[in-house]
Amino acid sequence: MENPGSQSASQTTSQGRFQSVVEPLQPAFAALESFLVRQVTAFEPEVQPLVDYCFGHSGKKLRPILVFSMGAEPGKVPSEEIVQAAAIVELVHLATLVHDDILDEADVRHRTETLVSKYGPHVAVLLGDALFAHALHLAAQYPDVEVCRTVSLATRQVCSGEIAQTFARGNELPDPEAYFRMIDLKTAELFNVSAYLGGYLAGFEENALDAARQYARHLGIAYQIYDDAADIFAEERVAGKTLGTDLATGKFTLPVLLWLEAMPAERRRKVFARLRGGSMDREQVRQALLDDGVLDSVGRAFHAQLELSHRAISRIPGSARRQQLEILADFVGSAWNKFNIR
Amino acid sequence: MENPGSQSASQTTSQGRFQSVVEPLQPAFAALESFLVRQVTAFEPEVQPLVDYCFGHSGKKLRPILVFSMGAEPGKVPSEEIVQAAAIVELVHLATLVHDDILDEADVRHRTETLVSKYGPHVAVLLGDALFAHALHLAAQYPDVEVCRTVSLATRQVCSGEIAQTFARGNELPDPEAYFRMIDLKTAELFNVSAYLGGYLAGFEENALDAARQYARHLGIAYQIYDDAADIFAEERVAGKTLGTDLATGKFTLPVLLWLEAMPAERRRKVFARLRGGSMDREQVRQALLDDGVLDSVGRAFHAQLELSHRAISRIPGSARRQQLEILADFVGSAWNKFNIR
Repeated sequence: MENPGSQSASQTTSQGRFQSVVEPLQPAFAALESFLVRQVTAFEPEVQPLVDYCFGHSGKKLRPILVFSMGAEPGKVPSEEIVQAAAIVELVHLATLVHDDILDEADVRHRTETLVSKYGPHVAVLLGDALFAHALHLAAQYPDVEVCRTVSLATRQVCSGEIAQTFARGNELPDPEAYFRMIDLKTAELFNVSAYLGGYLAGFEENALDAARQYARHLGIAYQIYDDAADIFAEERVAGKTLGTDLATGKFTLPVLLWLEAMPAERRRKVFARLRGGSMDREQVRQALLDDGVLDSVGRAFHAQLELSHRAISRIPGSARRQQLEILADFVGSAWNKFNIR
Repeated sequence: MENPGSQSASQTTSQGRFQSVVEPLQPAFAALESFLVRQVTAFEPEVQPLVDYCFGHSGKKLRPILVFSMGAEPGKVPSEEIVQAAAIVELVHLATLVHDDILDEADVRHRTETLVSKYGPHVAVLLGDALFAHALHLAAQYPDVEVCRTVSLATRQVCSGEIAQTFARGNELPDPEAYFRMIDLKTAELFNVSAYLGGYLAGFEENALDAARQYARHLGIAYQIYDDAADIFAEERVAGKTLGTDLATGKFTLPVLLWLEAMPAERRRKVFARLRGGSMDREQVRQALLDDGVLDSVGRAFHAQLELSHRAISRIPGSARRQQLEILADFVGSAWNKFNIR
């Protein structure tokens, strides 16, 4: 059962922690905002209002935060090429969100109507494409091709992860290992590339670049575990988006997979049949998972990833940067407190 | 009324002309095929069967033909970078087809079941994305960023053209000028870039590059006029794809726009209302357009574009190349004979 008092307290803590993540990055964020505003006019006139709508309803910008945390000095305006890299990864992310919302038939994201709900799936397919293409166009503005190479490969892997996930919907044997491979492709890869680009453009050496990738990759996996858990355990009011869409569309994420895995074979078969048949609603699933202690198992997987993320920090140069990365990992860790359910 | 005998004769002529286009490019096509086969394995394992399916059901490869016509010597195996450029433009084209077929709800393309019909819209959205991303990834393999810049910009313009077209569906005032702008973005731009890349990689000078772009752009506009006309005037048996989808989905192309434009205001209002209301089927529209001589007006617009294409050839270097370009433009011109309707 929930304790609204403690949840509200943990929310405040989480918001406070987010403030401490973004505060040193304010000059970088201001530069990113003005860069993105300029990008709207780079699109063909017909498309500008749609791009504007997308940019106006984005989230916490975790991927730009990763670029800045690696590539920008706290409190200072970063170089144009760092700002542009942050814009590129945010555009790729927005493109995947626009396409995801078609697949998930989601109506609300970041507390506003989704593009697919407002303009229909045709426009959403095409706008996602245009955002992808513009991201790659920006990547191609760098004098060397490394940015374009990295971003295009990551984009392909994100799509492949989503395809694997789509094929897995409603499959006979959901398997936690396949789940980890999917979220590695669909989420951790773009986190990884965001940190890599920040470090690459800031002149990191090979070992530090590898550490930047590891830090971001495990942070990304942790974040996706949290996001999937929120679809089942969070309150819509707190999440600011439609919840329960995974279950409703036959997408089984870590909580359900760990729950099934821990069952005797016979019960697993029966429960899985009920889940696939859609005869358990979100609230029933949520309560059953809480009763069986699944939130704790998922929490352990989440914290294990965060621990790997923390461990990579020591190989990254600069004490101010390392401190910023600790704060960021702690912020992601604090998200789990939202599930402070007794 | 149709004369099947003459249509069959013109088909043979058209196929004969296509043979004369591709014959000198056989070594280039063989290299392209083997390049594409190797690309399948570059995708994540989950996605490979889908990519294979797409590659196995492609069309005439007009965009690679443009790359090769500019960049390859007839009868010889072109350089790897020319072959790769041909693969890139074909991948971008395939990606747009996969997404188009979702929007058009088309079941058949190139005489086979479309990907969206076989695997559903979710997979089709994502596979289109992965094909786009892989095209850009290949573009990023060149030592200089020009290929990536050109391809990403063209891709964005293709999407913008499609978005403009989607918004125009069912609008109050269809307008031939808007139609030309849309097909310029959605079709001519990728033709243009295909010829540009072939010429650029073959070392063309500025004036020749401009001519290559002009040649291909007008060829692309002509080709799209033909393709849109075929949706109304061709036979499905000949076209190898679902026809009448434009009308059925409220997409009004040049034949309908010229037809409406030539009417007195009152009749136009009534006819447009019937078209929008879906109360005229393809056969009725087709017959009405033939009765009102619209096929001839559209034919004039088609041939005017081809003429502009022919005119650009003199500024392109190499007599063998110029001859190849004449043959290609003549082949596109011969497509019109399919509408040899008496």
